[in-house]
Formats: sequence, structure tokens, C-alpha cells
Amino acid sequence: MIYEEKTMKSEKIYEGKILSVRIDTVELPDKKYSKREIVEHPGAVAIVPITDEKEIVLIKQFRKATEAVMFEIPAGKLEINEQPAECAIRELKEETGLDAKKMEHIIEYYSSPGFTNEKIHIFMATEVVIGEADPEEDEYIDTVKVNIDEALDMINNGIIKDGKTIIGIFMAYNRMKRSE
Amino acid sequence: MIYEEKTMKSEKIYEGKILSVRIDTVELPDKKYSKREIVEHPGAVAIVPITDEKEIVLIKQFRKATEAVMFEIPAGKLEINEQPAECAIRELKEETGLDAKKMEHIIEYYSSPGFTNEKIHIFMATEVVIGEADPEEDEYIDTVKVNIDEALDMINNGIIKDGKTIIGIFMAYNRMKRSE
Repeated sequence: MIYEEKTMKSEKIYEGKILSVRIDTVELPDKKYSKREIVEHPGAVAIVPITDEKEIVLIKQFRKATEAVMFEIPAGKLEINEQPAECAIRELKEETGLDAKKMEHIIEYYSSPGFTNEKIHIFMATEVVIGEADPEEDEYIDTVKVNIDEALDMINNGIIKDGKTIIGIFMAYNRMKRSE
Repeated sequence: MIYEEKTMKSEKIYEGKILSVRIDTVELPDKKYSKREIVEHPGAVAIVPITDEKEIVLIKQFRKATEAVMFEIPAGKLEINEQPAECAIRELKEETGLDAKKMEHIIEYYSSPGFTNEKIHIFMATEVVIGEADPEEDEYIDTVKVNIDEALDMINNGIIKDGKTIIGIFMAYNRMKRSE
């Protein structure tokens, strides 16, 4: 049985700088109504940068939402009308200083479809050249390099706790294995 | 350089049934202020149910946030004071009718730490017995069974687009390979 939830009413609750929140009143298959709280997000890209030495470049960054310093792959929000591949090149450069000659789209997915439309596009960057990083004004970022086995260990040990980073590492690992 | 963002002000914008939204004004290392929009979420569990035939039970469900029917592993939000393992047993039963004799915690991660504190605990359920499903009033769910290779194909083909499902399948795959 495939069905949709028809929107009977949609109420904008909050319109922020990045996020907005709305409550949709929907009609279910049995004609009853229910409410859905939805966070609208512009979407994001994340990049798995692989050096010629087959190391992954991770960033370390404090995240207010989780109150923790986290290991992540470089990432950023899509600007209005920005193509994901463009955004990937821009964010990689800003956050790590890396220029990538090769930028391949490896997956796109929804971070948490139960409450948000945030879609994350993940790219793999190879043939990278190190330049000058240029983070945004309110970003403070360190970078670390790990090999793919260390990265997998960091997932299994709970050191890497970020969804896009876990998915990006698994996808990159599968590609690297296939091309061996 | 490890630092934290000190909260100078915290403003509650919205307090919903499931989500709430706040804006924190934070102090950066250079003493400048910035704002963080944060969605507070109670956290969730997701379960990779593996049958004795080594098939994964997926659910198919319409998601209002993405306006699409999605393939996902069974999942649900944590109730107040509920332990993740309890919640996993409850949600698995409600959504699929399955009772699991074995429920192992395989990973926990943040779905999107740039804007939300949602933490997802993933379990692997084995030695499952089929009973009667009992979804919540506003949940309409179909189940499908796929073997692990089909599940990996569905990730690579973009048929599975849900973050927790991708992570759950990769983690379960690694465990299944190891125990072979």
C-alpha cells in the first residue's frame, strides 16, 4: 500500500537564518488528521578528501548542538542556486585549503527524514593539492589525516560520531577497495 | 586548538510536540559573538532486524518532510526516561511485529550535528520471531525483506536514501562478514 499524506494546512512557525520550521496538518489514509513538525533546511554537501598517500583529511570542530568537538569530513550548506559540485569545491577549499582536481559524487541521502528535508550530497575528492584554508568568520577548524583503516576504527570505537562522516568513509572505502 | 563556544544567551523560539528550537548566542575564540540555530530532539533508536535466513527487514513509509515513500530500517523516538535498548524492542515490535531474542547495540551517532542534537542509537536484532505489528495511530507501514547484497545495491542505486538505514546496513554487513 503506497499512500501520501495530503497537506490540509501548513503553518510557518519560525523563519531563521538557516532553518525554518513549519507544522503541517496532514490527512492520513483513514481520513483522520495528524500533525507533522518539519524543519526546512537548504541541504548540504560533504567531501571525503583523499590524498595521494590514500589518507582521508578530517576536520575537528566544536559543535554547539552537541556541545562537543567532533571529527567530521569537510562540509557546508548549499547557498541559494548553488550546484552541489560547486559547493563541494568551495567548502573543501574554505575548510581545509585543498584544491581537488577530481570531485566525484558518491551518494546523496536524507540525514533524518522523520523531521527534516535536509539532503546531504557526498563527494569524494582526489588528486588534491594543498593551498591556504579560508574558513568562514565563525568557523574554527583543525585538520587531521588518517588512513582508511584508522578511519574505520574511529567509527567502530565511537570516536567518529557524525552521520555524514560515517557514510562518506564507508562509501569511499568501498570505492577504494574496488579500484585496487 | 580545542575550544568551546560559551553560551552568552539562549532564546527558546519554539517548543513543539517532538522538536524544540532555540537560538544560542555564542562567544567565539576571538571574543566575537555568533548565533547558532539549534533543533532539540529527544533522540531515536533504529533497528536492523536480521531473520534466520539472513534477510534484513525494511519498512516502507511515507515521510512528509521529504514528500516521498522511503525504505528505512524500523525506528522511533525515545520516550522520556526510556532506555535505548527498551525503545528498540518496543519500536521493532510496533512497526514490524517482530520479537527479537537478541538485540545488540552496534553504533550511536549524531544525524546532523551542524544544527541538531538528535542522537540515533542503532541496534541489530537477531533470532527474530514474527508476531503482530501494532503501529502508532498515525503510522502506515509496509515491510519488505531483502538480503544483504540487495540492501547494499539499494544504497548504491539510490533507492535507500535514509541516513540511519545506510549506516545500519553497513554496520550489520561488517558484523555479518566478521562472524562468517
